[in-house]
Amino acid sequence: MSERKPIPRIKGDNYSEAAAAQRRTFIEEQTGATLKHTGHYSIDPASVEGNAENFIGVVQMPVGVAGPYLINGEHAQGVFYVPMATTEGTLIASYSRGMRVISESGGATVTVIEEFMQRAPLFEFASAREARHFANWLDEQLTAIRQQAESTTSIGKLQHIQKWVIANKLYTRFNYTTGDAAGQNMTGKATHKACQWILANYPGVIENFSLSSGIETDKKHSHMNLLHSRGKKVVAEATISKDVLKDLMRADPERMFRLRQRTMLGSLLAGSAYNGPHSANGIASMFIATGQDEANVVESHTGIAFMDLTPAGDLYYSVTLPSIICASYGGGTGLATQRECLEIMDCYGQGKARKLAEIVAATVLAGDLSLAAAIVADEWVSSHDQLGRNRP
Amino acid sequence: MSERKPIPRIKGDNYSEAAAAQRRTFIEEQTGATLKHTGHYSIDPASVEGNAENFIGVVQMPVGVAGPYLINGEHAQGVFYVPMATTEGTLIASYSRGMRVISESGGATVTVIEEFMQRAPLFEFASAREARHFANWLDEQLTAIRQQAESTTSIGKLQHIQKWVIANKLYTRFNYTTGDAAGQNMTGKATHKACQWILANYPGVIENFSLSSGIETDKKHSHMNLLHSRGKKVVAEATISKDVLKDLMRADPERMFRLRQRTMLGSLLAGSAYNGPHSANGIASMFIATGQDEANVVESHTGIAFMDLTPAGDLYYSVTLPSIICASYGGGTGLATQRECLEIMDCYGQGKARKLAEIVAATVLAGDLSLAAAIVADEWVSSHDQLGRNRP
Amino acid sequence: MSERKPIPRIKGDNYSEAAAAQRRTFIEEQTGATLKHTGHYSIDPASVEGNAENFIGVVQMPVGVAGPYLINGEHAQGVFYVPMATTEGTLIASYSRGMRVISESGGATVTVIEEFMQRAPLFEFASAREARHFANWLDEQLTAIRQQAESTTSIGKLQHIQKWVIANKLYTRFNYTTGDAAGQNMTGKATHKACQWILANYPGVIENFSLSSGIETDKKHSHMNLLHSRGKKVVAEATISKDVLKDLMRADPERMFRLRQRTMLGSLLAGSAYNGPHSANGIASMFIATGQDEANVVESHTGIAFMDLTPAGDLYYSVTLPSIICASYGGGTGLATQRECLEIMDCYGQGKARKLAEIVAATVLAGDLSLAAAIVADEWVSSHDQLGRNRP
Amino acid sequence: MSERKPIPRIKGDNYSEAAAAQRRTFIEEQTGATLKHTGHYSIDPASVEGNAENFIGVVQMPVGVAGPYLINGEHAQGVFYVPMATTEGTLIASYSRGMRVISESGGATVTVIEEFMQRAPLFEFASAREARHFANWLDEQLTAIRQQAESTTSIGKLQHIQKWVIANKLYTRFNYTTGDAAGQNMTGKATHKACQWILANYPGVIENFSLSSGIETDKKHSHMNLLHSRGKKVVAEATISKDVLKDLMRADPERMFRLRQRTMLGSLLAGSAYNGPHSANGIASMFIATGQDEANVVESHTGIAFMDLTPAGDLYYSVTLPSIICASYGGGTGLATQRECLEIMDCYGQGKARKLAEIVAATVLAGDLSLAAAIVADEWVSSHDQLGRNRP
Repeated sequence: MSERKPIPRIKGDNYSEAAAAQRRTFIEEQTGATLKHTGHYSIDPASVEGNAENFIGVVQMPVGVAGPYLINGEHAQGVFYVPMATTEGTLIASYSRGMRVISESGGATVTVIEEFMQRAPLFEFASAREARHFANWLDEQLTAIRQQAESTTSIGKLQHIQKWVIANKLYTRFNYTTGDAAGQNMTGKATHKACQWILANYPGVIENFSLSSGIETDKKHSHMNLLHSRGKKVVAEATISKDVLKDLMRADPERMFRLRQRTMLGSLLAGSAYNGPHSANGIASMFIATGQDEANVVESHTGIAFMDLTPAGDLYYSVTLPSIICASYGGGTGLATQRECLEIMDCYGQGKARKLAEIVAATVLAGDLSLAAAIVADEWVSSHDQLGRNRP
Repeated sequence: MSERKPIPRIKGDNYSEAAAAQRRTFIEEQTGATLKHTGHYSIDPASVEGNAENFIGVVQMPVGVAGPYLINGEHAQGVFYVPMATTEGTLIASYSRGMRVISESGGATVTVIEEFMQRAPLFEFASAREARHFANWLDEQLTAIRQQAESTTSIGKLQHIQKWVIANKLYTRFNYTTGDAAGQNMTGKATHKACQWILANYPGVIENFSLSSGIETDKKHSHMNLLHSRGKKVVAEATISKDVLKDLMRADPERMFRLRQRTMLGSLLAGSAYNGPHSANGIASMFIATGQDEANVVESHTGIAFMDLTPAGDLYYSVTLPSIICASYGGGTGLATQRECLEIMDCYGQGKARKLAEIVAATVLAGDLSLAAAIVADEWVSSHDQLGRNRP
Repeated sequence: MSERKPIPRIKGDNYSEAAAAQRRTFIEEQTGATLKHTGHYSIDPASVEGNAENFIGVVQMPVGVAGPYLINGEHAQGVFYVPMATTEGTLIASYSRGMRVISESGGATVTVIEEFMQRAPLFEFASAREARHFANWLDEQLTAIRQQAESTTSIGKLQHIQKWVIANKLYTRFNYTTGDAAGQNMTGKATHKACQWILANYPGVIENFSLSSGIETDKKHSHMNLLHSRGKKVVAEATISKDVLKDLMRADPERMFRLRQRTMLGSLLAGSAYNGPHSANGIASMFIATGQDEANVVESHTGIAFMDLTPAGDLYYSVTLPSIICASYGGGTGLATQRECLEIMDCYGQGKARKLAEIVAATVLAGDLSLAAAIVADEWVSSHDQLGRNRP
Repeated sequence: MSERKPIPRIKGDNYSEAAAAQRRTFIEEQTGATLKHTGHYSIDPASVEGNAENFIGVVQMPVGVAGPYLINGEHAQGVFYVPMATTEGTLIASYSRGMRVISESGGATVTVIEEFMQRAPLFEFASAREARHFANWLDEQLTAIRQQAESTTSIGKLQHIQKWVIANKLYTRFNYTTGDAAGQNMTGKATHKACQWILANYPGVIENFSLSSGIETDKKHSHMNLLHSRGKKVVAEATISKDVLKDLMRADPERMFRLRQRTMLGSLLAGSAYNGPHSANGIASMFIATGQDEANVVESHTGIAFMDLTPAGDLYYSVTLPSIICASYGGGTGLATQRECLEIMDCYGQGKARKLAEIVAATVLAGDLSLAAAIVADEWVSSHDQLGRNRP
C-alpha cells in the first residue's frame, strides 16, 4: 500500500526498554524525528503492558500542585493538595486561587449522589409489540441475568436495566456499580456474558443483537449521561464569604450572580453540555495526573453549575457533575508517576474512588469560582497575559 | 483556615529544578507521598514557564505509535506514524488496525472545511430594540472594530461577528482565524481591545458588558460548536474495500452499515455529542502526545459519522469533526517530548496546524472503523480482555 | 392604564348565547370588527364552561376525513376514517394517500408501550447531602405518599417518582397513569396533596418548595419527554410493499431509504425534536378535531422515525412517538363537534384513550410515508401548488 | 384490502355543501357516527378549497377574548383584545390576568428582530473537498441563484444561503423573507426553481440531490431554529410593578425571580425547547383563532424567557421567541371566522404579519407571567379546579 514499513513487533519482550528503543530508532529512521526526551523515563516499561501498545516512551506532561484546599466530603475530609497535569499556563494558579477563597470561607462540601457504569446491548424483533414483550421478560428474569453478569466479576454488581423500545428494537442500559474501578471493561465482560444467556434462553425470536447500541454512551457527552449518571454523580458546594471574595478576588457576589444569570441564557442558546465556566480544565488535568482514562473527560465535564445569594449577601456556588468517571486502581493509576500523584491525595487503591471523585468535583468548583470572578473583575485577559505566555 | 501550609513560592527561580525539588519535598512532608518518579524528567524546567504553575515535575504518560497510515490530505500527504499518549490498553492497537485497513483500501482523504476561534462578549441595553440597534451599529463599524482587534496580534484576523438578541441583551461571537495557534488567548486579547473601543465609541447607552457570555463555548461541548466550528472543521473519509475489511477485521460492510443505522437511533435517543463510536479516544491521546490543551478534547470530540454502501458493496465511511482545536506552536507544543511527537509527523511550527488537524481527523476515522468492526465481529470484549488487562 | 374598557363579566349566565352575544357586541364596538361567523355555532354555550372564558363564539376550523386506513392495533383494530381539522391544503390528501399505501401493504401495526403523566415538585435543602437523604426518605415513604396522592382521584395512580439531585435541591417527577384522561389537572391536584403531606411529615428541614420545577415539562418539547414519556408512548410500523409504493407513489424503497440516511444526519445537525418529515401535522389536525389540548402537540410531536429495507426489498417504516398526550373524555372531547369526530373512530368515552393514541400514531406514519415519497418522487412542490393554493 | 369503501370523490363541486353533506352521510353510514354539529357552519365551503380536502364540515372550537392589553410594539401600538381558541379551561382567564398586570405596569414592549423562512436542499458529491468547492461556487453565484428563486414569486426574497459540509454532502438552508405570508410554499417553489438552475449550471458533478435534507426544519422543533429563526424572531418585555404584582397576583418579584433560577436548572436538566412556563398555550390558541398553520406551534414555541429584578425591586420579564411562524394573509387566514378574529386585532391582510407576531409574543409574555405568579402564590391547582372543571 505504501512505502513505509510496519512498526516492528518485538518478540518476547514487547514491553522492555530494549523494545521501546528499537521502536524509537525505527521511527527516527522512518521520519527523521529525534526521540531523545520521549525515551527518557523512569517508569518500568513492563508496567505499561495493558496501557499502551507499540510503546516508545513517554510524554513528560508538567505537573503542578494546587491548594491547600479544605474539603468536607464524606470520603475526602481535610486539607488537600491537588496535582494537576497541564500545559495551559494560568490554570493551576487560577484553581489554587479558587481553593484558597473557598478554604477561607469554610471549605467545599462534597457529596457523591450515585454511581453507575453502563453497557448498552440492543435487541431486535419482528415488531415493537415483541420488543415490549421481551422488555417485560427481562424484568422477570432480572435475578438470573444478574447472576450471569456477576459471574464474571467479583466486584461489579448489576443494579438495574433501563429499557427503551424504539421501532421494533429494545435499547437497554445495563447499570452496574463497579467498586473502585471505572469499570468499562468489567461491565463489558459481564454484559457480554449476560447477553449470551439471554440469547440462549429467551423463548421468543430475537432477530438481531448487538453488544453496543450507542446509548452507553461511551467516550462522548450525551444528554443521557446528564440525566442518568455514567460514573459518579457528585455535587460540590460552598458558601463564599463576600468579604473573602472581595479581598482576594476583587469581585463581589452580586455581580457574579448577575453574570451567571446571563451565562445561563448563553448556555440555553448554545446548547452547552455544562453551564459553568470550565469544568473540563480541572477534570482533564486531574485525570491525566492520576492515570484516569484521559478521553473520559468528555463524559465527565457535563453538569450544572448553580449560584445563589444568601440572605447575608454571601455567594452560594455549587457544581453538579453527574458523570465523573474515575478510578483509584486499574487502568493507568498504577503507573509510577500517576500513582504518586494519587498518593499526594491518599487516593490510590481500594476504597478510594469516591474520595477521588469528591476531590475532582471540589476542584472544578474552585476553578469555576476563580474564572467567574476574573471575568467580573476584568482580570481574565490580563492574568493569561502574565502567566500563560506560551499560549497564543 | 486550615492546618496545612501554603505551597512555597520560590523567589527568582520558580521554574528551576531546585524550585521543583523544594516543592516536591514540601508536598512529601505535608502528605507522606513520595515523588520519586514525578521528579524524574529531562525537559528543562524553565521551558515550563507559561504552562504550569507550582511545577513539581512530570507525569510520564506512555506513548505508543500507530500506523503506518496513508493520508491524502491537502496538508498531510503521505504515510504517517501517529504518536498516541494513553493508558487505555487496546487503544493504540485498535487505531493501528484501522489505519492498516484504510491504508490498504487507498488511504484516508481529509479536508479542512473552515476554521475559527471565538470570544463571546455580551452587551446589555434598556430594551431589545436598543440591542437590535446596537447589532446594526456593529455591522456598520466592522472595519473599525476589526482594526482594533487586529492591533493586538500579528496573526489573528477577525473574520465575522455573529449576533443574537436575547431579552434586552446582545450575545455575540467574534470569529477569528488564528494561524497555527489554537488562539484562545490571542482572541481574548483582541476582543478585549475591540470591546474597549466599542464601549468608548457606541453613541447609545450600553448598560452592562461582559467579555464572556458563555457562548464562546470554551472548554465545553455545545450544539453551537457542532454548527459553528470552534477550531478546525475537518472531514476524513475513506472507501473501505469489502475484501480488506473481511480479511483483516472479519466484518462485512453490510453488517457494519446495518449496525450504524441502529446506533444512529441510539444517538438521537441519548442526545449524543458524537454519533460514532469513540472520537474522544483518538483526539485525547494525540492531544496529550502533542502538547495541545488537553481539555479541548471536549469541544473537539463532537461530530457526525456517516456510513454508506457503495454500488460495489464497499463501505464509505466518514467523520465530520467541526471543532478540532489544535496548534502546531505555542501552548505545550514546544515542550521537549511534545515537540518530538509533533516532529514524528512533521507537524511542529509554522504552517503545520492544518496538517495536524487532518491527521487527527484521519486518526479518528481509523479508530471508529476498528471499534465498529470489532463490535460487529463480536471481538470487542475479547480484545480488551487480551490487551487491556490493566483496565478493569 | 388605557382607554379601552375591560371585557364585561356577565353575571349569572356567563356561558349563555346572550352573554356571548353581549361580548361580541362589546368587541365589535371596541374594535370595529364584525363577528358574524364567529357567532354562528350549534354547540351549547353552557357546554363551554370549563373550556374557554370570555366566550364569544367559535372558530370554524375545516374538517376533512382521511382514510380508509387499516390499523392493526391492540385497541384500534380494523378500518378507520380519520377526521383532521386543518387549514393546510394538501395535508389531508397526502395523509390519505399514505393510508392507502399502508393499507394495501397490510396495514399499520400499532402498540402502546407505556403511559405516564407527570408533575414535578421541587424541594430545597441546606445541602446536596440533605437532598440525597430526602430522596431516600421519599423512597421509603412511597406507599404513604401514593395514598395521599390517590386520595384526590378515583382514576389517577402514582406509579413511581423520579429524582434528580442538582445543587442542594431535589428535582422530582411524579409519574401517574391517568386512565382515559390526559391527566394534567388530576395529577396536579394529586401531587399538591402528596406534597402537603410530605411537607408536614418529613422530619428534616425543607428550606423551599415549589409545586413546579419546570421538568414536568408541560407545554414544551424536552429531551426528558423523548426519554421518559409524557403521555403515551406509541410505536406504529408497517412494511410497505415495493410494488404498491412504486405504483401509487412513484417512489422506490431504496431511494427512500437512502434519503432517510441523509435526513438522519440533518436531524443530528439541526438538533431536531423529530427526525421524520412532519409528525406535527397529523397530530395537530387530529388533536383539534377531537378536542385535545391543542398546545400538547409540542410535547406529542417528538419522536424517532426509522426506515429499513427488508430482504425482499420492501420498506419497513416505523414511527416511535413517546409522548402522545390524548384523552377520550374530559377537556374538549365532550364538545359537540369534537365528540362527533371522536365517534367517527369510536373513540369517545371510557376505555378509548389508547385506541385513539394508536390511531394518532398510525396517522403520523401515513403522513410521513406520503411526504417522504413525494420528496423522492419530486412531487412535493407540485402537489402543494395544485392543492394548497391558499397557502403562499 | 379492507371492507371499508374509499371516501367518495364528488365530481365538479368538491367544495360545495352538497359534497360535504354527501361525505358526512357516507361517513355516518360507514361508522355509525352522527355528524350533526360538524355539518353546522356558516363559512362558504368553496372558501375551503386550498385548505382541507375531503371536507365534511367544521370543528367548532370555542373562542374567548383576553385583554384589554397595552402593547408598545413597532407595529402593534395601543390596546388590544386577543382572540384565543382553546378547550383548556382557565387559559384565557389566566392570560387576561397577565395582560392586566402588564398593562397596569405600562404595557408590553415588543420588537421583531429578524425574519426568515427556509428550504434546505441537499447536494452530494464524490468527496468533502468537492462539497467545499461547490459551497464556494454557491457564494459566487448567489446573484444568479437569487434571480432564479425570485422569478417564481413577487414577494419572496432570497436573503442568504447557510451551508454545512457533512461527509461528502452540502446541507444548505436557503433563507428568504416572505412578506406577510408564512411562506413555506412560496419558498419551496423558489428553491425548487433555483436548484433546477444549480443542477443545470454547476460545472462539477453533483452525485445526488434532494430538495429537503431535514434541516429546514419544517414542522418540528430544532435547536437550529432557536439559533437561526424560522419565522419571526420577536422579543416581548415588560417591567412589572411590584405593587401591581402583589395586589393583583399575590406574588412578589423576589419569589418569582428565585423560582425562575430554579426552573432554569430544570430546563437545562430536561433539555427543554423553552425555559418559561407555557409559550405553547398562547401560541396555539392564537394560531387556531387566526387561521395559522396549527402545526407550526411546534417551531414557534421554542425560546428563552428571562427575569431580572430592577434596582427598584420591580420585575423585568421578557420572552424571546425566535421562530414565530405567522401570516396575515394566505393559508387559513381568509376563512370567515379566522379573518374575523384577525380583524379584532386589525391584523388581516397586507402589512400586518409583524403586527400579529408582536401581539403573539406579548400574549406569551402575559401568560407566562400569570402562570409563574400562580405557582409562587400556590394558586395554580386551585384556579384550575375552579375554572377548568372539564379537564381531568
